[in-house]
Amino acid sequence: MVIDELRAALGQKVSVNDTIREHHSKDESFHTPTLPDAVVFATCTQDVATTLRICNNNKTPVVAWGAGTSLEGNSTPIHGGVSLDLSQMDKILRVSGEDLDCTIQPGVRRKQLNEYLSKHGLFFPVDPGADATLGGMASTGASGTTTVKYGAMKQLVMSLTVVTANGEVITTSRRARKTSAGYDLTHLFVGSEGTLGVITELTLRVFGIPEVIAAATMQFDSVRNAVDGVIEVIQLGIGVARIELVDRQAVLAVNRYSQTELPEKDLLLLEFHGSAESTAIEIAEAKEVLGRYGGDNFLQTTDEAERRKLWQARHDAGLACRSHQPNGRIFSTDVCVPISKLSECIEQTQQDLADSKMYGPIVGHVGDGNFHVLLTADPNDHAAIEKLEDFHTRLVERSLSLEGTCTGEHGIGIGKIGYLISELGREAVDVMATIKLALDPNGIMNPGKIIADSVLQ
Amino acid sequence: MVIDELRAALGQKVSVNDTIREHHSKDESFHTPTLPDAVVFATCTQDVATTLRICNNNKTPVVAWGAGTSLEGNSTPIHGGVSLDLSQMDKILRVSGEDLDCTIQPGVRRKQLNEYLSKHGLFFPVDPGADATLGGMASTGASGTTTVKYGAMKQLVMSLTVVTANGEVITTSRRARKTSAGYDLTHLFVGSEGTLGVITELTLRVFGIPEVIAAATMQFDSVRNAVDGVIEVIQLGIGVARIELVDRQAVLAVNRYSQTELPEKDLLLLEFHGSAESTAIEIAEAKEVLGRYGGDNFLQTTDEAERRKLWQARHDAGLACRSHQPNGRIFSTDVCVPISKLSECIEQTQQDLADSKMYGPIVGHVGDGNFHVLLTADPNDHAAIEKLEDFHTRLVERSLSLEGTCTGEHGIGIGKIGYLISELGREAVDVMATIKLALDPNGIMNPGKIIADSVLQ
Repeated sequence: MVIDELRAALGQKVSVNDTIREHHSKDESFHTPTLPDAVVFATCTQDVATTLRICNNNKTPVVAWGAGTSLEGNSTPIHGGVSLDLSQMDKILRVSGEDLDCTIQPGVRRKQLNEYLSKHGLFFPVDPGADATLGGMASTGASGTTTVKYGAMKQLVMSLTVVTANGEVITTSRRARKTSAGYDLTHLFVGSEGTLGVITELTLRVFGIPEVIAAATMQFDSVRNAVDGVIEVIQLGIGVARIELVDRQAVLAVNRYSQTELPEKDLLLLEFHGSAESTAIEIAEAKEVLGRYGGDNFLQTTDEAERRKLWQARHDAGLACRSHQPNGRIFSTDVCVPISKLSECIEQTQQDLADSKMYGPIVGHVGDGNFHVLLTADPNDHAAIEKLEDFHTRLVERSLSLEGTCTGEHGIGIGKIGYLISELGREAVDVMATIKLALDPNGIMNPGKIIADSVLQ
Repeated sequence: MVIDELRAALGQKVSVNDTIREHHSKDESFHTPTLPDAVVFATCTQDVATTLRICNNNKTPVVAWGAGTSLEGNSTPIHGGVSLDLSQMDKILRVSGEDLDCTIQPGVRRKQLNEYLSKHGLFFPVDPGADATLGGMASTGASGTTTVKYGAMKQLVMSLTVVTANGEVITTSRRARKTSAGYDLTHLFVGSEGTLGVITELTLRVFGIPEVIAAATMQFDSVRNAVDGVIEVIQLGIGVARIELVDRQAVLAVNRYSQTELPEKDLLLLEFHGSAESTAIEIAEAKEVLGRYGGDNFLQTTDEAERRKLWQARHDAGLACRSHQPNGRIFSTDVCVPISKLSECIEQTQQDLADSKMYGPIVGHVGDGNFHVLLTADPNDHAAIEKLEDFHTRLVERSLSLEGTCTGEHGIGIGKIGYLISELGREAVDVMATIKLALDPNGIMNPGKIIADSVLQ
């Protein structure tokens, strides 16, 4: 009946084709796929409003869909209903070099945006690795390798157009660089994973492409030395644009996979953005500091092709570490701790992996205190998944005991829903539930994500 | 009866003394003072929870109080009730040089915090001018002269402890540098002006004191030239830490007030933070760019005493411009527009002032597109206030038509409550009202601020 109503209003934009439904049943993670009853391909804000109004009247779940690159089942329609596909809303609506901002539709992908912006001498820095949609990145609260300098989605989304559960269209903020006008609705929707509303337009901060991009790598005898060096680099305000760790285990995997011959040590990769002078100064300062922590084998370049080669280990790490399990899908871990606790957290995690006889190479956005253990799981191997879940629980508990979070950038989705109360306390989650119930009284917006059903009842 | 209950629970911390109530009846603005029925001096989170629980049971308004430096009646108890004074909660609880953060109580003042942090080689950059409390600055969504480099309170508050209307104590986030765990409650409370809860603890990002602070000034023949130069400086990514405009009218006032002999032109003041090398490069780059926009009379220094002298015009501007009206109180204007629209907005405003035969010197955080017309009002001169209100309405309408906001950093309070719907639309304000009603069903938290009573009904 809902599907009939949707069809009457939206015609060919509604599909119940099996292949299309199957495509919208899962993300990149190991979580169990579940089919939506229908997929709506929205082409404008009004389509989204129409869909939500009809679904709200019928108490039918609506799960927004971008590129399907999420890692915690964030866009999986676990209660069926409508998968609201925004990928056709992929227009870049305006770009301003003077104001350093742009306004885009939610289905625009990261690489598409940067290709377009580059013609204006601009770029959008958030780089989560995957070629995700910007709507999805905002909804997940994504970040990535450049967050240490430019900030995460949270810092770079200036304003959103959002359709709420009842089909109302709101704009969360003006285009001014800052405002204190009322509650910060922008930040309420960023990271809310489609559980409060559907983003149909985003205004984002952008930056001028730096005159010079300088890359460097250094090797260390221990994660602790590498991380302690990073702490001092950041404390001194040396303006690194990226500072990434690839641990020894991950370096070994890359050497195997990519036929490289990197020294079998913990690897730090750095990038600096600025003028020729400023990057030269920063790179020399960073080299000096990191050298005092035992960093050696220093390499640097400003040439684009060489830069890619120098950073190859970071780009290949994910595939390399997951290549040993061809049927495996990603089992995401994403803890983030205060940087002073980072080496402790990584060392204890490596010990846990050794004790558990588990293969778990590590890459980390060390400037932010965020790291991923690159695990894979065969979705049908329940014993293996149980073992991974146990390891993950210990990892999250370790992070929480070190004042950290269970998720730095992937979101709660379904995979971390059990940890939210441990992390923030029942009272804080109750406040979230109060907001959720007030804005989505029929519980149609991506049900079963972020806040457990038991809390909402 | 409420007062009896409060006294039974909190003893001497409750005062109904007339002088104390009078002190809590107004902020620094011209808005009409109104007395609270009682003042509670909280010394811990538990005191705040006790006060809120009792007041919520009795449907008695509670208005949080810091230093009374707000500019829009934000902390004026317009419906009476309890003024909840947090100034005695002024402990700095922890500082971490490794993590570049600190945790403090809400009554800590800005200068006190920076004095303390300086012993650790650290500083907290947000500088709104007034020696406000950090709790008040977070509640107002304050910013100031350094926002162009370091961000506003919104960007620098990492986590809050908040007591909600029903007396529950929540912590909004972990101490990790970033997180995607659930709804962003931190940002919901920052800028909510005590209408959703009372902040009793803040974790803030801090920064290493730069090795070198370099200041510079330049003069321009027009605001447009100055602002166009600023746009290019920012577009090129030249890392200014502060970039402030003092318009010709304000320069004249400073010359009179401070017996200085500054050229009678529009003045741009700049500050750069970094190493000797990096600041030297940045200052040379900025000078070159601004020179192309007609900037002359370039002066620069890295000496602290000389720096203060060079920036004296900015520091004295407020007092200088208001000194002509000894009985006047501040009539705050605070529009903020996309920087590409800033010179247009200032020029039209100067024309309006001339047409209206009004005296209105201008200072601006031009790097953010935010400026203040420095107006004063005798609270008893109703005709004068009406004229100012009319001017202010035109100014806000101008800002809104240029995609700006009615308030960049002072908040809505009572003074701008009429503009919120014009700015964001009824649907967005309705979402705010839904959140307010859900979290504060009895309407006790700073009633009459941000959202008009008519919207809440």
